[in-house]
Parts: sequence; structure tokens; C-alpha cells
Amino acid sequence: MASKFRLALIQLYVEKFRPNNLARASRLIAQAASNGAAVVVLPEFFTCWCDPKYFIENKEQLDGPTNRMLSQAARDNRVFLFGGTFPEAIPDSEMLYNTCQIFNPRGDLVGMFRKLHLFDVDLGPRMKITESEMMVPGKSLTVVDTGFCRTGFGVCVDLRYPELARLYAKRGVDLMTYMGGFSLTTGPHHLQVLQRARAIDNQIYVANVGPASNHDAPYVTYGHSAVADPWGRIIGETGSDEDIVYADIDLDLIADTRRRLPVDHMRRDDLFETRDLTGEQT
Amino acid sequence: MASKFRLALIQLYVEKFRPNNLARASRLIAQAASNGAAVVVLPEFFTCWCDPKYFIENKEQLDGPTNRMLSQAARDNRVFLFGGTFPEAIPDSEMLYNTCQIFNPRGDLVGMFRKLHLFDVDLGPRMKITESEMMVPGKSLTVVDTGFCRTGFGVCVDLRYPELARLYAKRGVDLMTYMGGFSLTTGPHHLQVLQRARAIDNQIYVANVGPASNHDAPYVTYGHSAVADPWGRIIGETGSDEDIVYADIDLDLIADTRRRLPVDHMRRDDLFETRDLTGEQT
Repeated sequence: MASKFRLALIQLYVEKFRPNNLARASRLIAQAASNGAAVVVLPEFFTCWCDPKYFIENKEQLDGPTNRMLSQAARDNRVFLFGGTFPEAIPDSEMLYNTCQIFNPRGDLVGMFRKLHLFDVDLGPRMKITESEMMVPGKSLTVVDTGFCRTGFGVCVDLRYPELARLYAKRGVDLMTYMGGFSLTTGPHHLQVLQRARAIDNQIYVANVGPASNHDAPYVTYGHSAVADPWGRIIGETGSDEDIVYADIDLDLIADTRRRLPVDHMRRDDLFETRDLTGEQT
Repeated sequence: MASKFRLALIQLYVEKFRPNNLARASRLIAQAASNGAAVVVLPEFFTCWCDPKYFIENKEQLDGPTNRMLSQAARDNRVFLFGGTFPEAIPDSEMLYNTCQIFNPRGDLVGMFRKLHLFDVDLGPRMKITESEMMVPGKSLTVVDTGFCRTGFGVCVDLRYPELARLYAKRGVDLMTYMGGFSLTTGPHHLQVLQRARAIDNQIYVANVGPASNHDAPYVTYGHSAVADPWGRIIGETGSDEDIVYADIDLDLIADTRRRLPVDHMRRDDLFETRDLTGEQT
């Protein structure tokens, strides 16, 4: 099994409404594939602005236009596609899920992840956000095995919980993929530090992909998509503008890092334990 | 109760043998106190070089010269003294503990911490270290309440385990004090990232103090002692040489950070839990 592959993170510039965003994402997926990417990742809320008003106008169910675009793009370009997130409509409800769909190179939906931690914060006059008023959190971890890389998923605030990364590590993931839209308030202070720490703690690759900064949007995201290796080094990154981040993943580095610095072996399992309460078979 | 105080980290230049190190530490404790520090911290293995040969020649029991110097320095300077670590001899054994003693401003020993995670690594020809061949790990967490600041303790590798910081946070600490001697191999990549992540995850202050780099020593430490605030900002730091790092701690910032960004409130306690297996009353 190949232990090396190219990962591409699409830091999309997101406009208000869905059609332009789907078209633009589709073009960038093709571009990433033509540059050798075997796995392509889109950011959180890539189909519309991250704001209640736009969520309502752009929400859709699992078999909507976003699903169709992603499936076709995966198939056309023969890539694994970790399809960012979109506001998923819940039938007979005003509420939404923040949902990621994952496709294999045949265009089959092979996994789905719904954001687990909702963002209820008071970070200043223009940054009081209460996601729990409009969103329902997921209740499952999602692991997708591409055949060459076992991947776990998180969205935005999920990155703040080392317990979650640890549970995924216990399930054997090689790569954590966080689709995040960190803000300009928290992003510069927290995003890359937490990303690198999750990589170092668990000695895995950690990708983080957010939308490009759009200063016309009500909620301006920070961008700064990046990939950290199991030693915590940043091996691909970008700034705030639309861009594709490429990283050449070498999965042998995981075992090599763990052999040199056996964090898991040294851990005091007799003093503490991260308990998985999901009830999922792992 | 005062919510503000000055913390001082003494990044000591450590020589081979104990006497000079005790004298030098004593002088720097007085200097830190004269500059307004209410809490003074010494680094891991500040009494001798970090190497089996020097451990054997410098090991002592809990009532030895290191204890006496620390007690007197705390009393003379009226400071809380988190007294770094020394190789603690175990009666009728060749083995050691890596032990920290904590004194109040009257010079009373008010707490003790023994390093929990032993460093067994293979980081290259000159960096194969197997602490478990000569050391016995501790089995307890240590929380000391100064009356104005509740503090948890860790030594070096203990910093690599987010579970440990989380257990301390659950016990209500305002400050984690890590006395670490990170190496030149791991320090530049891991030390400050992990320190900041523990602060951000738990929204507490995190101090890290190591010995100054001594290129004559068999094991060269990285230095870079620093203090991170609950937002993850570095509010005091130094390079590799002997120095005292000062940081003005404002404990109100903890509650303020948690009010703005309620990480603990948002946490999915229904999906995971960090279990405390120490059996200690908390």
C-alpha cells in the first residue's frame, strides 16, 4: 500500500450564495487533482456566508446540489474528496446541521461528519455568536479509510478539545482533518498552535482548512489553512487569500516518530484515561 | 484576596556539582524577590547535570542540603518557592525519584511532586535516554494553594500529556508549573507549542522553566523558559542563557477568558471524558 500521497487543501473564497461557490470549488478541485493531489479537502461552510441569514437561504438536504457537485468532482478527477461543510436542512425544523460529506474517487458517499461542538461565544460587539440557537450538533466521530490513509474529522471548535483528537488517535487515524472557519479574533492566537499541538500529542498529520478571508462577509474567517506533520512541523500553509495548500504526506513518518519518541508507550494509563462515551463500535 | 502577583522563573545555569548550584540559585531567588516576585520557580534538575553519573554523585534524601537551602531562601525572601527538581535518593535502592519540593514564605515544606512520565527515547546517537532504568515515577498529582493562586505541577515529559493538564484544570488550578529540561532536539519544535496549547485548552496560566543551555554538559537543555496566559499569549520569555523571566499574573483574566470563550461549557461531556484514575480525593 502506498505510504505517500499528496494532500490538497482548498482555501476557497466564499461568496454569499451557493451557485458561484460550487462552480469555483469544482474548478479548484480539478486544479488540485491536475497537480497530483489524491485527497482534496474543502473548508467549513464553503457554500455560503457563515451567517444565519445566508444559512436559511442556502440550506439544503443531503441529496442537494452540493452533494451532486461533490460526487461528480470526485469521480471526474478520481480523488478522495473531503467535501467541506454546508448548512444541512433538517426536515420539519428551523434548525441545521453543519455537515461534511466524504466521497471516494468513484463519487460514492463513503462518510459523513456533523460538527460536534457548537460555537457559543461573546468575543466583542460584532463577535457574539450563539450557534446552539440554530444548529444541532452531531453525535458521532467519523473515521474514513481511503485504503492508504485513515482519517478522522472535526470542524472548527472541535479542534479545541484534545480529548477528541485523542479518541481519534485511539481509533488509529493517520490524519486529522479539521475544516475550520476560525475568526480574526481567535485565529491568530489559537489556530496553528492547537493544530500543531494535536499533531505533536498524537504523532499524526493534522490538516486544517478554512475559507479565505472575505471582508464583505458578516463573519470574516482567518484562512491560514495548513498541514502539520507528526513532529509538529508545518509542511504546507498559506495566508488569508484564496489558495490551494499542497502537502506531501509520508505515512512512514508516523511510525518513525513514535519509535524515536514513544509518547503513547510512556503515557501513564494507570493515572488517567480518555474515555470514549459515544457508544460506537471502534 | 489579591488577584495579581509577580511570578519569576529562574533559568539557572547548572554546573556539574551541587554546592555552586545551590549558592547560585539562592542568590537568584533573592534577586527575584527584590524585583517583586511573590512566587519563584526553579527548573528541573537544578542541583547537578542531568546524567546518570552526576545523579549518583549528587543524589540526596528529602532532608538534604537542597531542602535546607530552599527552605531558608523561601523564608529569608518571604516568597513561595517552587523548588525545581533534584535527584532524590531512595533508601536501599540504586533508583531515584525526580522530585520537586514546594515551600511557603515561612520556609515550610507545603508540597512535593515527583515526575510522573519517564523519558525513554531514541532521538539519535547522543540522545538515547532511558530514564526508567534509573528512576521511579511518581504516582500523584500535586496541587498547592498559595492562598492567592492554585497551582498544579508537572516535570518535562509530563507536558506532553493534555490529559494531565485537564485533570489539573478539573481540580481548579489557575496555573500549571512545568519544570522541564527539554532537549535541543525536541525543544525548538515542541516546547512552546505544547505550553501554549495547554494554556489555551484549559484557559489557565502555564509556566515552563528549564535550565539554561550548558554546552559542556552531557545533556544540553534548551532553556526558553516562558509564561503563557489563558489566551495563549507569551507574557514573559527568554532564550538559552541564564536569566530570570518575570510575568505579572492577573488571575481575573481566567474568568474573563472563560466568559468570552466558554470552552468548558461547550465541551461534549456526553461524548468523552478524561477519567482520573489516581484514586486521590480532589
